[in-house]
Amino acid sequence: MIIVLEPNTPESVILDLTKEVETMGVQIQRNNGQSYTVLAVLGDTSKVKEAPILSNKFVHNLVRIQEPYKRANKIFKPERTVIDVGGHKIGSDELVVMAGPCSVEGEESVIEHAKAVKKAGAHFLRGGAYKPRSSPYSFQGLGKEGIDYMVKAKKETGLPIITEIMSIGTLDEYADVDIIQVGARNMQNFALLKALGKTNKPILLKRGLSSTIEEWLMSAEYIIAEGNENVILCERGIRTFENYTRNTLDISAVPVIKRMSHLPIIIDPSHAGGLWWMVESLSKASVAAGADGLIIEVHLDPPHAIVTVHRA
Amino acid sequence: MIIVLEPNTPESVILDLTKEVETMGVQIQRNNGQSYTVLAVLGDTSKVKEAPILSNKFVHNLVRIQEPYKRANKIFKPERTVIDVGGHKIGSDELVVMAGPCSVEGEESVIEHAKAVKKAGAHFLRGGAYKPRSSPYSFQGLGKEGIDYMVKAKKETGLPIITEIMSIGTLDEYADVDIIQVGARNMQNFALLKALGKTNKPILLKRGLSSTIEEWLMSAEYIIAEGNENVILCERGIRTFENYTRNTLDISAVPVIKRMSHLPIIIDPSHAGGLWWMVESLSKASVAAGADGLIIEVHLDPPHAIVTVHRA
Amino acid sequence: MIIVLEPNTPESVILDLTKEVETMGVQIQRNNGQSYTVLAVLGDTSKVKEAPILSNKFVHNLVRIQEPYKRANKIFKPERTVIDVGGHKIGSDELVVMAGPCSVEGEESVIEHAKAVKKAGAHFLRGGAYKPRSSPYSFQGLGKEGIDYMVKAKKETGLPIITEIMSIGTLDEYADVDIIQVGARNMQNFALLKALGKTNKPILLKRGLSSTIEEWLMSAEYIIAEGNENVILCERGIRTFENYTRNTLDISAVPVIKRMSHLPIIIDPSHAGGLWWMVESLSKASVAAGADGLIIEVHLDPPHAIVTVHRA
Amino acid sequence: MIIVLEPNTPESVILDLTKEVETMGVQIQRNNGQSYTVLAVLGDTSKVKEAPILSNKFVHNLVRIQEPYKRANKIFKPERTVIDVGGHKIGSDELVVMAGPCSVEGEESVIEHAKAVKKAGAHFLRGGAYKPRSSPYSFQGLGKEGIDYMVKAKKETGLPIITEIMSIGTLDEYADVDIIQVGARNMQNFALLKALGKTNKPILLKRGLSSTIEEWLMSAEYIIAEGNENVILCERGIRTFENYTRNTLDISAVPVIKRMSHLPIIIDPSHAGGLWWMVESLSKASVAAGADGLIIEVHLDPPHAIVTVHRA
Repeated sequence: MIIVLEPNTPESVILDLTKEVETMGVQIQRNNGQSYTVLAVLGDTSKVKEAPILSNKFVHNLVRIQEPYKRANKIFKPERTVIDVGGHKIGSDELVVMAGPCSVEGEESVIEHAKAVKKAGAHFLRGGAYKPRSSPYSFQGLGKEGIDYMVKAKKETGLPIITEIMSIGTLDEYADVDIIQVGARNMQNFALLKALGKTNKPILLKRGLSSTIEEWLMSAEYIIAEGNENVILCERGIRTFENYTRNTLDISAVPVIKRMSHLPIIIDPSHAGGLWWMVESLSKASVAAGADGLIIEVHLDPPHAIVTVHRA
Repeated sequence: MIIVLEPNTPESVILDLTKEVETMGVQIQRNNGQSYTVLAVLGDTSKVKEAPILSNKFVHNLVRIQEPYKRANKIFKPERTVIDVGGHKIGSDELVVMAGPCSVEGEESVIEHAKAVKKAGAHFLRGGAYKPRSSPYSFQGLGKEGIDYMVKAKKETGLPIITEIMSIGTLDEYADVDIIQVGARNMQNFALLKALGKTNKPILLKRGLSSTIEEWLMSAEYIIAEGNENVILCERGIRTFENYTRNTLDISAVPVIKRMSHLPIIIDPSHAGGLWWMVESLSKASVAAGADGLIIEVHLDPPHAIVTVHRA
Repeated sequence: MIIVLEPNTPESVILDLTKEVETMGVQIQRNNGQSYTVLAVLGDTSKVKEAPILSNKFVHNLVRIQEPYKRANKIFKPERTVIDVGGHKIGSDELVVMAGPCSVEGEESVIEHAKAVKKAGAHFLRGGAYKPRSSPYSFQGLGKEGIDYMVKAKKETGLPIITEIMSIGTLDEYADVDIIQVGARNMQNFALLKALGKTNKPILLKRGLSSTIEEWLMSAEYIIAEGNENVILCERGIRTFENYTRNTLDISAVPVIKRMSHLPIIIDPSHAGGLWWMVESLSKASVAAGADGLIIEVHLDPPHAIVTVHRA
Repeated sequence: MIIVLEPNTPESVILDLTKEVETMGVQIQRNNGQSYTVLAVLGDTSKVKEAPILSNKFVHNLVRIQEPYKRANKIFKPERTVIDVGGHKIGSDELVVMAGPCSVEGEESVIEHAKAVKKAGAHFLRGGAYKPRSSPYSFQGLGKEGIDYMVKAKKETGLPIITEIMSIGTLDEYADVDIIQVGARNMQNFALLKALGKTNKPILLKRGLSSTIEEWLMSAEYIIAEGNENVILCERGIRTFENYTRNTLDISAVPVIKRMSHLPIIIDPSHAGGLWWMVESLSKASVAAGADGLIIEVHLDPPHAIVTVHRA
């Protein structure tokens, strides 16, 4: 951590600040620059509180040097995390494909979709039982009933299943679910992350629409810090000014995550682009970039799907 | 709603699509443009599902004309919503000021702050008991104990209090809280919004960091749709590329909300700017723009505050 | 084009507005929606001026249906544009690779780089003679001298060359340049675009940092409208909130351009990511997504390059 | 400047890098952090080239501490710059209002507008002669003829005039113009900035749609570095994801500029919001925030204006 002081900061202020910061368990090394005096904070800077420093009127700026995530950081755990789900090794050299309908619409329908995606070569069945919808008037999903249908489709086809959780109160319903998904809107629902950290279920953590990669890794850190290391990151597009696509797929997240973290990363091309005709191109790009897998929305009869954008 | 068709869409496809959309309870009026045929969807388009239409490969584009929010929409309720809390009429011509420390740090401290902000002219005491922090290693707030201290400060000074909720499970703890705050990260925690909609507490709904004004009003709609009309909107800065400020205060949200909705809007200049020296300028701007109030972080001794950025 | 009127717009206003808009050479078809009356504007809406309509206080909103670009639009020219430069068919099924140093540093150096990139399999030599730099104190490039060295490297190796133009005044210097590049900062330098439209040189048009795809195609339209159809689009990253990468490569631009336009699109992974270790991953992703080519910065001795970020 | 090294960087690499950077005329002070070794670069770091450092594979990160602008920086010139134009002191405690039509439409019309804005209390007449339009098919302005009409309106009313320049080639036409405006799209047209820096005309420098405050000040630096210190900054909205407004007025730019620079800053509420009914609210906010002035589009007969959005 670097504390940049205003020009002409009184010597007494520098000494007081140094003393104060050092009480937080770190050392200060002073560098006298041409225009600014800079205090380098050495040691475990994760204990240092920024706000009281920033409220000092002689502090010009404060820059963190070290990434705030530790357990998700490749520096502290260089070997890749590989998560074995139903025999599929996510994060290894295997490419994992998850596919299924946006919403679970009924028992028969989800089983039919499971068979189709299995036949097409997918390894996991995805499907939404609880649906986060921006409008209270939109279909909110079948809930527990939807999860039950997913479990039946799993028994029928052998495909492991993944579905989203929206509230701690429903956690018990996910006993037979193989991977629990945290949606983009809940990426910083810290109470939920902590609860999931206390389970041993693999968690697919979607990146928030406007979350930085650092914040995303900090949310993974919330889960890991509670004891659950089975976190799979999922990039699904970020919010930008561009409006020809629903979101902007941040393909660079793949090499960045591979360099900064040991966690696996998969891509959701369906929500990133938002339109069926982009999915093929974005899927190929994701695999070529080095992603560990894909999660794709498909539907056998798109014009009659309850919620869908892509053709199976 | 407007459905734009690809050039050379076969007549049979147009007829099928028209029939299909009309089964959703609306009427289609056809407009033959120069390059595109356009279908205007008339009636209550809130029932129309977009995804199956968009998955039709002859659909070039789909444009919503009507705002998706109804109960929060000025068109359907032209008179302003005024919320009376402790005698303060939020949304009227009165300017309401809420102030207090970022985090509740202890009983004595919060009472001392309450007295100071009352003396300075503020009408409400704000303070954080549950703190949403991007790092699991940061101070997470005093929780229930913090709320209890806030309530004591209220008894001591007569100031009504406002504090944030992060999880449905703690709702019972807010019985003596005057306004419950939903933070930016939970703006689309729909389970929480629904639960708050079933209370009759005034709710301060902060705008998500990267939420559009439309999404923000849709989140208000979630609360109102459950029966609670006491929603106060709070703009606290949006995420942009600019990095000299923590967030970008979207001051235009004030005139936009005043035109599109009947709900009150207040501004949080502290979190928008992120640095103490911006607060005065942004506060004045907010009032001049027409905001109904301000919510400001203050601290009597900033260098020793647990979490703070501004001077009292 | 769709004009949405406020609820309760007086009938006389609707009639006046209809008459006024129809004098611009289009027809109005009226649709009476549940909350809003909507006027569909039929015909060649490119002649319709938006501002006077928007200043009518009974106009709630105005929505363009048709893309504003015509000559760059696939609807009006479905077959792909293929540009032959030195025998390389850009926009065909051939993948074209352009490579070279960020800045031309000297005659010997640029020839050495040309030989190296040719040997490595690249088809074009790129290099900066005029350099747009955000600081007036940074090296601004060798200018005309740099172009001369590029031309020598071309003679030496047979590689066609591409270099950036920053000002109309220097256009004469580009006689022996095979492709003239317009940089991101000049994407809406309309005077420059018009001047280039009057030449018959292939133009590589980089997307502005915060330009929408629509604005980018409109800038291509400026060049084509003057008579020069040889426009190659180049995506090089857009500005977002993410700060682990210099810019965010908008990989979705590839399928979008392929669907909306007939123009070729290539990708610049070097400026998008900004760091050498991202280039390989982003290059592979670009090719897989369907890009027509790549333009990559390389340097034989990066630590001693004047301006560079990547290893050759 | 701070260079952060990868963990386990070999000692020989650190020594080589230190030697290499020190040849650029600065000193290195080494700080051994817990996870990273950090090299503080002391002295005039504006001479240090970043790219060759970043291409060293042991360099984890590079952070600039000092602002790259010097002549625009308040640290190097603490007293405010006041620019006297026609007796109006821009940057002093005087609030300066510039108003007029978007486009100059004709001699009579511009004179009529000049009289109206003078009567309404404005101090300057603004009007567009050369118009940057995203479409080549839109009205591009009257050009030199438009400037001539502006000059006539100035003679008629005594109001000093401001109008935009789009190309170096037309600079001679601005002899009688009091303030030359550089539009948002040309904020990084460095050739144009250099040419204007060689004049002694006051320059109104609009912020680019997606330019950071730092880049904006660097563009001011381009003008000042050539000798012209008469730079007025103009905030006119930045591009964000919000689509209820044309752009997002960054009101925080006012306190930021006042703290970081000595240059005056005025606000353009018309282009920021994009709709007439926002102008009043945003103008009041701008003045309250501390802006030195306003530049507002007005029109006496908006429905018949060639380009306009606001009522006079």
